[in-house]
Amino acid sequence: MKLPQGFLSSGINCGLKRKKLDLGLIYVEDFAKVAGFFTTNANLSYSVVAAKKNIKNPIKAVLVNSGNANCYSHKSGLKDTEDIVLKLAKKLGVKQSSILIASTGIIGKKLPKQKIISGLEPLIKNLGKQSKNFSESILTTDAFVKTAGKQILKGKASVVGFAKGAGMICPNMATMLAFVLTDCDLPQAVFKKIAKEAVEESFNSISVDGCMSTNDTLICLSSGKVPLKNKAQIADFSKSLKVVCLELAKLIVKDAEGASKFIHIRIKGAKTKLEAKKCGLALANSNLFKCAIYGENANWGRIIQSLGQVGVKLGENIGIKTNSLKKRNIDIAIDLKRGRSSASIYTSDLTPQYVKINAEYS
Amino acid sequence: MKLPQGFLSSGINCGLKRKKLDLGLIYVEDFAKVAGFFTTNANLSYSVVAAKKNIKNPIKAVLVNSGNANCYSHKSGLKDTEDIVLKLAKKLGVKQSSILIASTGIIGKKLPKQKIISGLEPLIKNLGKQSKNFSESILTTDAFVKTAGKQILKGKASVVGFAKGAGMICPNMATMLAFVLTDCDLPQAVFKKIAKEAVEESFNSISVDGCMSTNDTLICLSSGKVPLKNKAQIADFSKSLKVVCLELAKLIVKDAEGASKFIHIRIKGAKTKLEAKKCGLALANSNLFKCAIYGENANWGRIIQSLGQVGVKLGENIGIKTNSLKKRNIDIAIDLKRGRSSASIYTSDLTPQYVKINAEYS
Repeated sequence: MKLPQGFLSSGINCGLKRKKLDLGLIYVEDFAKVAGFFTTNANLSYSVVAAKKNIKNPIKAVLVNSGNANCYSHKSGLKDTEDIVLKLAKKLGVKQSSILIASTGIIGKKLPKQKIISGLEPLIKNLGKQSKNFSESILTTDAFVKTAGKQILKGKASVVGFAKGAGMICPNMATMLAFVLTDCDLPQAVFKKIAKEAVEESFNSISVDGCMSTNDTLICLSSGKVPLKNKAQIADFSKSLKVVCLELAKLIVKDAEGASKFIHIRIKGAKTKLEAKKCGLALANSNLFKCAIYGENANWGRIIQSLGQVGVKLGENIGIKTNSLKKRNIDIAIDLKRGRSSASIYTSDLTPQYVKINAEYS
Repeated sequence: MKLPQGFLSSGINCGLKRKKLDLGLIYVEDFAKVAGFFTTNANLSYSVVAAKKNIKNPIKAVLVNSGNANCYSHKSGLKDTEDIVLKLAKKLGVKQSSILIASTGIIGKKLPKQKIISGLEPLIKNLGKQSKNFSESILTTDAFVKTAGKQILKGKASVVGFAKGAGMICPNMATMLAFVLTDCDLPQAVFKKIAKEAVEESFNSISVDGCMSTNDTLICLSSGKVPLKNKAQIADFSKSLKVVCLELAKLIVKDAEGASKFIHIRIKGAKTKLEAKKCGLALANSNLFKCAIYGENANWGRIIQSLGQVGVKLGENIGIKTNSLKKRNIDIAIDLKRGRSSASIYTSDLTPQYVKINAEYS
């Protein structure tokens, strides 16, 4: 996929994995505005710690490695990470503070710092306007590349995104990573606000197994090449960003290991948006509900149980509608009949295959 | 098993299930002091609602049915339940307020009130000093009867308990129920305090699948036949009650459907008891951790991830010790090295068999 104006990217193999691409770079011709979102897990990858430090600065480049989570491995982990960032900054002739880093892979294994540093030169040499190598370099056990893009302003600008992972579903692996790029320029505060809304309805509305990773990172970058001139253009951008984020989030759920169903849970009639989301996530994280869907078994007692567990007291009149449970894509609409708010949550079923994959991997 | 002095029990089939016993009664010759504990699920079984109303009164009898959760079935559910309680009270010549009721089984199916009412007379006729029929009458998909007992005061008194279930693990089923009887007499406030401590370390320290039922009920009854005379005797009783509750709780975990391992998680070096328990339960409710144990796979990255998810930031020096993962009984000791508190949590592994059982049942 072609990148938005003002961005270049590359991806190479630096030896973290045997054959596949494992090191990627996003490069900004000028400096990008950024909106960043990170895991709230208390045990953070050193890469997340390092990225959070720079997340308020104008950004020159984002370095990403797969095959190693760079998490909880040794006492000098953060120092090693900052050394890598410094080396890249020097090669690009910018300050360390304009570099972000993200990692995904096995927790508890020391990051081979020299392999990554040796990879920086070829990474920079290979920078180009296409996303193919970068989008491959961030994958771990993903079954397919996850990209989404949308043209806006009649093709004058675009939003393009990449993601990897399926929650903390991968054995020994952590991490959902996502990067969304645009050439649209808008005020920093507006950019952040729009990005936050898009994240809430996409990456924060999915769950595969309820396990929160140590490495989750989403970086949205704006190169600023195409100024947005009015409210209609900003609304257009906002809509496109939501479409791209939601498409990436759905791709993550569709790639959930062992899954046989893609489930769209729509909660309506909730007192608040927050309550609607809480109810949807309670189901998305309920093993019993997910087993029932796997078994194509309309066991709605489990819905009553799950919603009660998160404190939502139901009347006897709630509405539950679904399409055929025999399909691969399941739509479940639940009307709580308590209020007027609604939310959509996306998840997968729980299957014997999920257990086997996560038991057997080592 | 022989009941403590002052108690009688019985169990019959009243037609809720085809052949098995499905209605049980505990009868107190005088009136019993009671300590009761109920699910915190917002969607309660009508039986739980009715029992909570009377839980502070002296108790004459406890009526229990299996095969139907008496939950979320129809608008007159609570009225029907109170009708049953009233009928039993009349037959026993006591006030309605001295009767407790508990149910376990399918959610959302109307309780056949007349079948239960017709069963009251034979239940009362069959009352006796043995527990066999009662302990069978409370089971649903349990693979075995769960009873535990301990003699105290050199055999002059005893603590005897019964339980059913394995969390909200059973397909379509809810519920853990437990009943613990003693003839020891001690002040009401002390009885409640000791019971609460015993529950914390037993029934509140187990998790099969993290799903909280609509029906969970634990009733501790003291018939008051054997007065405890001093602190040593009270301490003896307290210890025995803990032993009985813990044994019942462990039996529930051992009967967890599909489980291939019984896991004892010991957390030490926590800042507080509450933190230790939170960490243990985070692991007990982590699908990834439970899959790893099923796979006999020492994947400790998942411990880091799970503990971080509940906000516990770890140093690089935590200690993890375990016996061979090939065994059926797994002991995992985790030293957080943050403080001096500890806790034990009991759980099972997550297996393909669990998913199959909970998917295929209908």
